[in-house]
Amino acid sequence: MSLELRRRLFDELDRLVIVDPHTHINPHAPAAENLADILGYHYYTELAHSAGMPREQIEEPGLDPREKVRRLVGQLAPLDNTIQYSWLLEMARRLFDFDEERLTPQNWERLYDRVTQQASAADWSQQVLKKSRLSAVFLTNDFDDPLEGFDTKVYIPCLRTDDLVFHLAKPEVRERLQRATNLAVDGVVSLRKAIAARFEHFTKRGARACAISLPPDFSPAPVSNQDAEAALRKLLASGVGADAESRGIVARFVFWTLTEMCAEYRLPFDLMIGVNRAVYAAGVYQGQDLYDSRVSLIQYRELFNAFPRVTFPISVLASVTNQELVSYSWIFPNVVTNGHWWYSNTPNYIEFDAAARLEAVPRTKQIGYYSDMYKLEFALPKFAMYKRILAKILAERFVLDRGWSEERAVALGTEVLRDNTTRIFGEV
Amino acid sequence: MSLELRRRLFDELDRLVIVDPHTHINPHAPAAENLADILGYHYYTELAHSAGMPREQIEEPGLDPREKVRRLVGQLAPLDNTIQYSWLLEMARRLFDFDEERLTPQNWERLYDRVTQQASAADWSQQVLKKSRLSAVFLTNDFDDPLEGFDTKVYIPCLRTDDLVFHLAKPEVRERLQRATNLAVDGVVSLRKAIAARFEHFTKRGARACAISLPPDFSPAPVSNQDAEAALRKLLASGVGADAESRGIVARFVFWTLTEMCAEYRLPFDLMIGVNRAVYAAGVYQGQDLYDSRVSLIQYRELFNAFPRVTFPISVLASVTNQELVSYSWIFPNVVTNGHWWYSNTPNYIEFDAAARLEAVPRTKQIGYYSDMYKLEFALPKFAMYKRILAKILAERFVLDRGWSEERAVALGTEVLRDNTTRIFGEV
Amino acid sequence: MSLELRRRLFDELDRLVIVDPHTHINPHAPAAENLADILGYHYYTELAHSAGMPREQIEEPGLDPREKVRRLVGQLAPLDNTIQYSWLLEMARRLFDFDEERLTPQNWERLYDRVTQQASAADWSQQVLKKSRLSAVFLTNDFDDPLEGFDTKVYIPCLRTDDLVFHLAKPEVRERLQRATNLAVDGVVSLRKAIAARFEHFTKRGARACAISLPPDFSPAPVSNQDAEAALRKLLASGVGADAESRGIVARFVFWTLTEMCAEYRLPFDLMIGVNRAVYAAGVYQGQDLYDSRVSLIQYRELFNAFPRVTFPISVLASVTNQELVSYSWIFPNVVTNGHWWYSNTPNYIEFDAAARLEAVPRTKQIGYYSDMYKLEFALPKFAMYKRILAKILAERFVLDRGWSEERAVALGTEVLRDNTTRIFGEV
Repeated sequence: MSLELRRRLFDELDRLVIVDPHTHINPHAPAAENLADILGYHYYTELAHSAGMPREQIEEPGLDPREKVRRLVGQLAPLDNTIQYSWLLEMARRLFDFDEERLTPQNWERLYDRVTQQASAADWSQQVLKKSRLSAVFLTNDFDDPLEGFDTKVYIPCLRTDDLVFHLAKPEVRERLQRATNLAVDGVVSLRKAIAARFEHFTKRGARACAISLPPDFSPAPVSNQDAEAALRKLLASGVGADAESRGIVARFVFWTLTEMCAEYRLPFDLMIGVNRAVYAAGVYQGQDLYDSRVSLIQYRELFNAFPRVTFPISVLASVTNQELVSYSWIFPNVVTNGHWWYSNTPNYIEFDAAARLEAVPRTKQIGYYSDMYKLEFALPKFAMYKRILAKILAERFVLDRGWSEERAVALGTEVLRDNTTRIFGEV
Repeated sequence: MSLELRRRLFDELDRLVIVDPHTHINPHAPAAENLADILGYHYYTELAHSAGMPREQIEEPGLDPREKVRRLVGQLAPLDNTIQYSWLLEMARRLFDFDEERLTPQNWERLYDRVTQQASAADWSQQVLKKSRLSAVFLTNDFDDPLEGFDTKVYIPCLRTDDLVFHLAKPEVRERLQRATNLAVDGVVSLRKAIAARFEHFTKRGARACAISLPPDFSPAPVSNQDAEAALRKLLASGVGADAESRGIVARFVFWTLTEMCAEYRLPFDLMIGVNRAVYAAGVYQGQDLYDSRVSLIQYRELFNAFPRVTFPISVLASVTNQELVSYSWIFPNVVTNGHWWYSNTPNYIEFDAAARLEAVPRTKQIGYYSDMYKLEFALPKFAMYKRILAKILAERFVLDRGWSEERAVALGTEVLRDNTTRIFGEV
Repeated sequence: MSLELRRRLFDELDRLVIVDPHTHINPHAPAAENLADILGYHYYTELAHSAGMPREQIEEPGLDPREKVRRLVGQLAPLDNTIQYSWLLEMARRLFDFDEERLTPQNWERLYDRVTQQASAADWSQQVLKKSRLSAVFLTNDFDDPLEGFDTKVYIPCLRTDDLVFHLAKPEVRERLQRATNLAVDGVVSLRKAIAARFEHFTKRGARACAISLPPDFSPAPVSNQDAEAALRKLLASGVGADAESRGIVARFVFWTLTEMCAEYRLPFDLMIGVNRAVYAAGVYQGQDLYDSRVSLIQYRELFNAFPRVTFPISVLASVTNQELVSYSWIFPNVVTNGHWWYSNTPNYIEFDAAARLEAVPRTKQIGYYSDMYKLEFALPKFAMYKRILAKILAERFVLDRGWSEERAVALGTEVLRDNTTRIFGEV
């Protein structure tokens, strides 16, 4: 019976101890301290706001955590159908023994107190990692992160580069770069040196990837030093007031330079393609970004050809781009599929997209999933969702449709869920 | 067992008495008079034409209804696989006791006579509403509709505005506006006044929505009065001979003005996004329109931000746009999902699109379905199709995959099928 | 039970003797001579390369077939999840009695020898046709193919026209045209004459279709003789050095002329829409092409309207274009759906795309599948994959969801799998 088969495959996959290859965990405060840290996740604030809760109620300055939770719980009912809500309840049940179907104005205080109590244990983050069967998580570090004061074998540094590519016109970004490198950026040569210094710093401290999110209209291309120099000087002179063309040239130059560094320092370059920032500027914190699904990997054609030695784990924001990702990964040795990102991280899109990958991309080139979480507690329910879908695909499309043994199906699942992370990013 | 579970959920959903939130019903002749009124629906004429039937046979001037049906029935076989054909047979069975698998040259006359006979009852339209468990249906009214002579509690007015936005260059449109308002449009001020007068008229007579269908290349934007005035004057001077730019400016101005009126008169603004008109100009009546699926809701970014108090129930023509609709509805408080429109109104697209919505959009922000019908008889089979798919999604993705109780699943279905219509458009 | 029902429907469909409406078979060497001919299929070389195998190992000049197979087999493990790999194993089992789950360095020699032995039989290609239940296959013939020396009732000529439309700037293409027609192309009149001569030649020898693959940015349009003449003269003068605009004009002129010839010679015109050539120029042979999924059939609007008497069987490269194909086929009498092409020829895309077609396009306007194969051995596993998916759709969406009898479902499957090929291309 299909449901039992799915259950058996899920149980096998759920035993695996894995690495989460992309998160936003703060290694100095990896786990939640209270329920407000959990309900403050943008999925809940933005959905509650979308369902009618004013932003001001959520983001009132100085708001007490308990009051914030009380307010949000009062507005969760309209989103209790969503998969995001189910993450919350599954987490509450499996990490906090809160066995309710819903979180309501009547029952939330019990969960609040339970979270506060458990989170106060000195080893709470280790407990969460263990219960979630995570051996390590990748971070998302600002380029000027000192990467000090945490175990980089468990919290693996990853150099996030959006600021360098898209916000170098901002004086504060250049100042941060200068402070981090002791190099004053006054032209292309010093900029390249400063970037190299950051790669040196990150790789010395165990960084396993460079990463960036990119808007739908971005097309990487090489820029001559001369053109870059001219554009960069305009940026240095005018800051964010510089003309769009110069900013675009600098963005392409920095991006291309980053990729050259990835080649030199042997770092995979995670590309997260397709997001438009601040589309809904009046939205809650982190709940303002959307996208234009009219993007194509053909925009990355020159890049993929120019850097055969750089591996590009690619995430696409819209499911309609997933078939291109499948096809490009099937053809280009240096393109691999990476997780199910953000607006595509819901069951029916995961199922459709993951099935396409499992059927047509070499099994060694697929990073199945990452949690993208800000607090460790979310890995468990998010990976559980993915593993259920993976088990469903393996059961229906491989065991039943193609006659595979269950062992073979589990082996494929193990590869995309666990083994490829170390295969592609290196042993940690 | 999944099929039995689906059946149980369907049966619960099928009991509900609901409002159909978008139709093209003529309130003065809401039901069919004969089978020609039913087979004349563009789905049958366009599919029969597509399968080889010359338009001239279908649209011969002065054609007798019985002869028209005889001709069409002779050409239906090639489309007996389509879901549209299944609507016809389910309607025939459930409204006219015609229990055949197919409508053929051998058996059609029995159905013809049965329809004529039943439709001759004075209360036939009420009978159809009752059998279809409809308490009311939304109309699609021309802006100059007097809205008189029918019960606006059952046939709910809706102000359709395509003509005002896209065809104001036509003298006859302006004349209709003048006749309806007693206002001569000679500039921006009088145009705005005339539009306001129509909102006044419609809302006084119970209108619950403003609506429009939009081509894929339309991008709403505010227009200054000065620019609008200049462009409008060109239109008044040259009519349809006016340059494309001026026509575009006037279209954007009128659209923006309509939205301001929606804010003022508290009407939701139904946007049906993505249709290109008359792509196949030699096609049958209403069977000429197609689309370019390369459209993005990013084109509506400024609109959604500018009108936080206007609710936009949005239909997209192509399923590839549905994920954007899901994401925009999840972020923007004023964007809600609306039905499964036209070329996306077939089971596999409905299933894929509705599942995505149910998993990620607050349940209060989803209008599940509308029939888009021209004759009342079509609500029953179209809604039945949707309810079966909804029951399938709820059974498989909520009860089986997520462990929901059947009651909870039915409650979610009830909300998108019935409750949200009044939540969003107001009690009728 | 759904799996048993699917099996029953599959068994019925699997009995049918059919015509394969698009292949790249060489009629002078239709079947493989050895396993290298099979493993040399670009699906295996490109996937092995994508998974890490250097192109040089695969394409070493003068490489012995046995050694080539040995090398490739050593690199197949990373792709043993793919559906393409499953074709290989199903073919090995059903044509060569090789009953293994995988092809490995340990067992490949047995298969190698078996293939060589069986393929040495004089009637091997007939045996393969018979075991595959194929009565005939369509070819892909260069425009200058003499079409001699083979049975055109089994190997049906098809005029492939990419070279004429897109490569007429190359002197060798024009020379081939001159040799084939004895006409020197020195202007529009002689070009048209030469093209007509090729249609004459092909149709006399039993050609059933004209065909072309098209890049995503191509938009057919008529070109005046004057504009064509001017552009053609530039091409004749400068060859591939001619400006892009002139080359574009000539491409549109030749394409339009081909369509006129299709009307005159009553040939369907297979359009395969959406491929970008040589995106990964360092890839293996035939493993370099990809695409931009941002393409729309609206680009073909003028063409479809201008040639109501030409049937256009259309393949789209990306699944996101399939809904447009469904809608255009549902509206335009001269547009029909054709197979599941290349990057969309994997189970989950086939299932999604075929279901949409079966639900909304007249059953007489759907060519279910073609193998696209280079060697006859691939028809069996590729059609088997399609028939399993077709059986699944018919079982779940027609028998279970819509209450069809199994007979009716099989009849629909028979039509798209067998009957429509002769209905659309003519009896062979």
